[in-house]
Amino acid sequence: MDVFEAISKRRSIRKYKSAEVEDEKLQKILESARIAPSAANRQEWKFIVVKDAETRQNLVEASYGQKLVGEAPVTIAACSTESERVMPCGQYAYTVDLSIAVSFMILEATELGLGTCWLGAFDEGKVKEVLDIPGDIRVPAMFTLGYADENPDQRPRKDLNDIVFHEKYQ
Amino acid sequence: MDVFEAISKRRSIRKYKSAEVEDEKLQKILESARIAPSAANRQEWKFIVVKDAETRQNLVEASYGQKLVGEAPVTIAACSTESERVMPCGQYAYTVDLSIAVSFMILEATELGLGTCWLGAFDEGKVKEVLDIPGDIRVPAMFTLGYADENPDQRPRKDLNDIVFHEKYQ
Repeated sequence: MDVFEAISKRRSIRKYKSAEVEDEKLQKILESARIAPSAANRQEWKFIVVKDAETRQNLVEASYGQKLVGEAPVTIAACSTESERVMPCGQYAYTVDLSIAVSFMILEATELGLGTCWLGAFDEGKVKEVLDIPGDIRVPAMFTLGYADENPDQRPRKDLNDIVFHEKYQ
Repeated sequence: MDVFEAISKRRSIRKYKSAEVEDEKLQKILESARIAPSAANRQEWKFIVVKDAETRQNLVEASYGQKLVGEAPVTIAACSTESERVMPCGQYAYTVDLSIAVSFMILEATELGLGTCWLGAFDEGKVKEVLDIPGDIRVPAMFTLGYADENPDQRPRKDLNDIVFHEKYQ
């Protein structure tokens, strides 16, 4: 699958089949994060692969009751091991770095025929309790992973003319 | 080019040929951002395509003298039109949303044979002056775009075993 096709076909998947994710596919998804760029190539990240049913159920509670977290066979928590570093542009490096890594993983998952849903609605403190994550580690993103049991249309998007400027802000 | 190949081949390119980026390719790159996911599908983003040589030179100064910004035929500034919104996980939605959009664009650019460099070292206030960006708009990321005039090796990465945990943080 080419990149543009993966970008076009990606959907946020909220219903999953019970089929497990093959190890080979999971490895390729994690490899996509491993080789992603990070600020100053520091790679201050860890990725926790959660498959255990009880742990996933605890993550449902830590995610404001989102059932998809219990239904998807895998959830991956993206963790930062250096969360104070601010880039000269004013952004926290870890938020950007982990967002890139997760972006790469969800596109690679799409290529491999898997569905994902990027999770922004979770209680970081509770997720850290569930996954034994130390106090100084941040969790800027999680996503579910598995075979889709739905085929949603793309949600509406703004026109290119409404979001692109040339040369200056207009 | 498949997704994994694009992820593997992507490099941060700091030397560019003077050849322009074809409009058709630029449109496909911008389309990759247009259809990217955003928190609650709000798409609170604008992308400024800068080609003008004088403006790019001004961006060099706003980017702590990084010459590549003047050499690359295109720089794209990713802007947020809603920068106060915080997701339940504690992260600013705009930083994550724009990071996803730029991630998709740099992979699509790789597929199209173009080089990119994600810029984190710029003075946001000066960039906003150069590009007439209003006060309440944030610029969490910029990237250069053009045909590479170098072929750098991949920089070293940590082993997968050092960055992946199973079930719990260890």
